[in-house]
Amino acid sequence: MKNIDICLSPELIHLFDLEGKTVVVVDILRATSCMTTALAHGMQGIIPVSTTDECMALKQQGYLTAAERNGEKVDGFDFGNSPFSFMQPELKGKTLAVTTTNGTLAINKSKVSAKEVLVGSFLNISAVANYLIKQENDVVVVCAGWKGKVNIEDSLYAGALVEKLRDDFSSEFDSAIIAHSLYKAAKDDMLGFISTCSHVQRLKRLGIEKDIAFCLTMDEYDVIPVLKGDVLINLNTVAVL
Amino acid sequence: MKNIDICLSPELIHLFDLEGKTVVVVDILRATSCMTTALAHGMQGIIPVSTTDECMALKQQGYLTAAERNGEKVDGFDFGNSPFSFMQPELKGKTLAVTTTNGTLAINKSKVSAKEVLVGSFLNISAVANYLIKQENDVVVVCAGWKGKVNIEDSLYAGALVEKLRDDFSSEFDSAIIAHSLYKAAKDDMLGFISTCSHVQRLKRLGIEKDIAFCLTMDEYDVIPVLKGDVLINLNTVAVL
Repeated sequence: MKNIDICLSPELIHLFDLEGKTVVVVDILRATSCMTTALAHGMQGIIPVSTTDECMALKQQGYLTAAERNGEKVDGFDFGNSPFSFMQPELKGKTLAVTTTNGTLAINKSKVSAKEVLVGSFLNISAVANYLIKQENDVVVVCAGWKGKVNIEDSLYAGALVEKLRDDFSSEFDSAIIAHSLYKAAKDDMLGFISTCSHVQRLKRLGIEKDIAFCLTMDEYDVIPVLKGDVLINLNTVAVL
Repeated sequence: MKNIDICLSPELIHLFDLEGKTVVVVDILRATSCMTTALAHGMQGIIPVSTTDECMALKQQGYLTAAERNGEKVDGFDFGNSPFSFMQPELKGKTLAVTTTNGTLAINKSKVSAKEVLVGSFLNISAVANYLIKQENDVVVVCAGWKGKVNIEDSLYAGALVEKLRDDFSSEFDSAIIAHSLYKAAKDDMLGFISTCSHVQRLKRLGIEKDIAFCLTMDEYDVIPVLKGDVLINLNTVAVL
């Protein structure tokens, strides 16, 4: 039986052997939710970069760009980090370069040794789960966290994925049990559950309550974002809009 | 209101500002459970050291020594890492140097910047909780984990401590909510709950089921282990045996 393990923070990634494995990177609030949304709305590709300098260099090459630091849009780029920014028809067929506080770093750390890197969010959890069931590799979920610390929403996603994969994957690693237990406690009211934590309260002060509620919506999109070289593309060519 | 935060692995400790804070280091299986047990049985002091070389140097100075790596006793030292080794009357008044895979490293990482360092286990959870309520500092629980990874039993202890402190400490940090949620799911049968995880199954193969059950026992001892300089002592001079 394949197995699923959870890396609760990118700061722990060196403890995981990712060789031959499929990694699912998750940054629910909001990087990977935005990527899922953009691909669902027909964006052709997304290039995750770790620094704003790299992102600016790609802007100068003509790419659309999105940059977020500390939850806020960075001046000089086209977009910030709200999923509602990535629903416009004019983005169709375009490629976006993106850098965020936590999510893009987690993707770039993962791609160094993983066999394949996907991007997950609640918005496309079943699409990714079904893909993982069909492929043959063990899976590691890499939670982007918040500036290196473990966070609740990415851990919740990891637990939800463990739940969806429970007939096909063994999940007896400690972190998988912890995340699954968290998800079982929260699943009936995820928004209420995460609203108590200081990290989400901080994001709420930025006025993104609507984003948070949207990012906790399950199965809005039938999108499988997979990294091919440096570019995330949607393996499902026809998105369900 | 004071607050409590949880560092789920020593690999994340650099992300926590420990200045002015009281740190509780926990390594349920089995380092901090052994230290609690030894102090409860009248041992005068415990010197946690990070390496077997340091431990051997202290043995040559005449100290009793305990050393464990990968769950097993290291040859050449007096004791391994079973709490039942530390119940003999002849240990009374003696000082022990100890090194373990995870626990002593977590203590030594914590003491660099924390205001005060305590050692916690289920065996003395109420004694430590009552001490924390009386003192004035914010608290960070540092989980020793397993070779850097987050583990279930130390996270459970952190959650149990959050529960005990809930009237006196705010615990809205993500890791505290995650640990508390885990504890609430497991508290009616902690042994059954943790028995599913691969890490505990590995320890069971070492034949320490009896140790594991004992280490999950609540409030066996009224001991408050506090680091004074390099030596752990019991703040409660009269132990309840």
